[in-house]
Amino acid sequence: MSNAWWHAPAREINQDSREQALARQQQLTKPAGSLGQLEVVAVQLAGLQGWVKPALDKVWISIFAGDHGVVAEGVSAYPQEVTGQMLHNFIMGGAAISVLAKQLSAQLDVVDLGTVSSLNLPGVRHLNLGAGTANFAKGEAMTQAQLEGALEGGRESVLRAKSAGAELFIGGEMGIGNTTAASAVACSLLNCPASLLVGPGTGLDAQGVNHKAQVIERALQLHAAESGNALGSLRAMGGFEVAALVGAYLACAQEGVAVLVDGFICTVAALVAVRLNPSCREWLFFGHCGAEPGHRHVLETLQAEPLLELGLRLGEGSGAALAVPLLRLACELHNGMATFAEAAVADRPA
Amino acid sequence: MSNAWWHAPAREINQDSREQALARQQQLTKPAGSLGQLEVVAVQLAGLQGWVKPALDKVWISIFAGDHGVVAEGVSAYPQEVTGQMLHNFIMGGAAISVLAKQLSAQLDVVDLGTVSSLNLPGVRHLNLGAGTANFAKGEAMTQAQLEGALEGGRESVLRAKSAGAELFIGGEMGIGNTTAASAVACSLLNCPASLLVGPGTGLDAQGVNHKAQVIERALQLHAAESGNALGSLRAMGGFEVAALVGAYLACAQEGVAVLVDGFICTVAALVAVRLNPSCREWLFFGHCGAEPGHRHVLETLQAEPLLELGLRLGEGSGAALAVPLLRLACELHNGMATFAEAAVADRPA
Repeated sequence: MSNAWWHAPAREINQDSREQALARQQQLTKPAGSLGQLEVVAVQLAGLQGWVKPALDKVWISIFAGDHGVVAEGVSAYPQEVTGQMLHNFIMGGAAISVLAKQLSAQLDVVDLGTVSSLNLPGVRHLNLGAGTANFAKGEAMTQAQLEGALEGGRESVLRAKSAGAELFIGGEMGIGNTTAASAVACSLLNCPASLLVGPGTGLDAQGVNHKAQVIERALQLHAAESGNALGSLRAMGGFEVAALVGAYLACAQEGVAVLVDGFICTVAALVAVRLNPSCREWLFFGHCGAEPGHRHVLETLQAEPLLELGLRLGEGSGAALAVPLLRLACELHNGMATFAEAAVADRPA
Repeated sequence: MSNAWWHAPAREINQDSREQALARQQQLTKPAGSLGQLEVVAVQLAGLQGWVKPALDKVWISIFAGDHGVVAEGVSAYPQEVTGQMLHNFIMGGAAISVLAKQLSAQLDVVDLGTVSSLNLPGVRHLNLGAGTANFAKGEAMTQAQLEGALEGGRESVLRAKSAGAELFIGGEMGIGNTTAASAVACSLLNCPASLLVGPGTGLDAQGVNHKAQVIERALQLHAAESGNALGSLRAMGGFEVAALVGAYLACAQEGVAVLVDGFICTVAALVAVRLNPSCREWLFFGHCGAEPGHRHVLETLQAEPLLELGLRLGEGSGAALAVPLLRLACELHNGMATFAEAAVADRPA
């Protein structure tokens, strides 16, 4: 697999643009560094886009959905049919991400990788990889063909985003049971106990969280041979939509489209992507730190500095979408503020 | 002074609207509580505005500027002329807040309460309270007449904002030396040592921060009679623009306009306002926790939960302006998402 597409290097950052943007930030009419993280973001975007004055007009949001066999173990507060029902809600405009996409003038792409209900919804791309994954507490979640199909499904969305001129890619996810799958994959890669990362997901009580951790611990024993192996852990315990996110992030870095990573599940997908191909890391921004306890841990592993922390735990790409105005305003400030010379304002004495 | 305008009670919150908004949040197609702080904000705005579906189309930003006699003690990294130069930059569109106001379609109101340069800038309201405050390390910063003029100046901006239909008021500040003034007022109200709150402001080094703390400690001794007295501390050690912010926040609460508080200096003004008239507290939202070390302490005293934490230390209302899209999206989500019944999505079993 060493010649697989996901091992190809990320596009290189334009260091000239980056340095010119950094020099520009020092000349704007504000104390140096006083816009904090927004300065860092604008300078990084300049390097990624190869322009001193970056722009984020066109935002693309792909929602990847899939079902999870591990739900049979009783790890979710919601019935599995909700995955399919929410796909319908995404395209009808009633879901959180639908409202956000409209407000941000973002393109919303809804991809069903494989759900338990056999669906044929207009406006949804159905990839039909299977009726959800297999129960990873009892065997491997995916076949190798399913894994590669899901990675490729993510990449296809990126290629379409790029064709549409997208300057920022957001991946979202929907899948009852997917915090369980993501937690298991993260534990396998970070070699840590389930109790460190597992949380309530969409709404388990303490007993439910405890049970979920036990299910994951058993699965980690079953799949111990994959411990620390990014692709192996993803196949054994991940989900179709998690694999699609991994493929999407890697393709974004290769194709030169900046990424805004959403919540816990997306951040675990980013971890898998970075372990698989570290060159992708520079292309990833992180939208928020959510309420799921494992999120902060995985963010720290990635040395990520998320833009928001609002106690969100919805998924769908919603936390990343909420951070888009900050990235856009970071660009507007960088591009539109006057320099000390232009405004005839005294800078501090050297 | 007990019949002064600033003691009049805040407008009461509409509890019916608030409770209906809370009930609506529970019915939207997301796990209950999964939008975290955005749910809290939308419900509170519903109560303040008296509508189940609140809106924040019209935002008003008033920048209050003033100079500070305490700069003679060597407490700032920038020369005092910068206050006046930045007033020009605000109206010419080159400052951070100018760029943000334009992007948010917000009305920008620039008020000069009293600066060392005698200015007459078109587009700026000059209130001419004096050539900056007196050096509070050696005497009282303001006369009683100046204090009342500054409070009234803030209130006038709010009345104009209300006439223009503003649904959200942001107060910003500009004044070389004003973190020193704000830190002194906060220390007096919180009865804490200067070293706990004092930080680099716009860019002091460690030695400068230490000197600033010593200047404040001496002033706290000099004005010990005002310790814990909100109005007395404001007069003795505050600034014109800090007093204008206090007046503005109190007037907003009385007139029924929600407030988004900016950084450290604005948060100290909010502390003074709440100490003077606790009924205003419900009308205050907090935009961000900035880099100035005292900010978090004052926020905690106010039991405030800021929306952003991006390492900002610019002032001008910029941190609050950056949080406006979050408040607007909180409203859009609250108003625009489908309910479980509307979308035919299964809610979790009761």
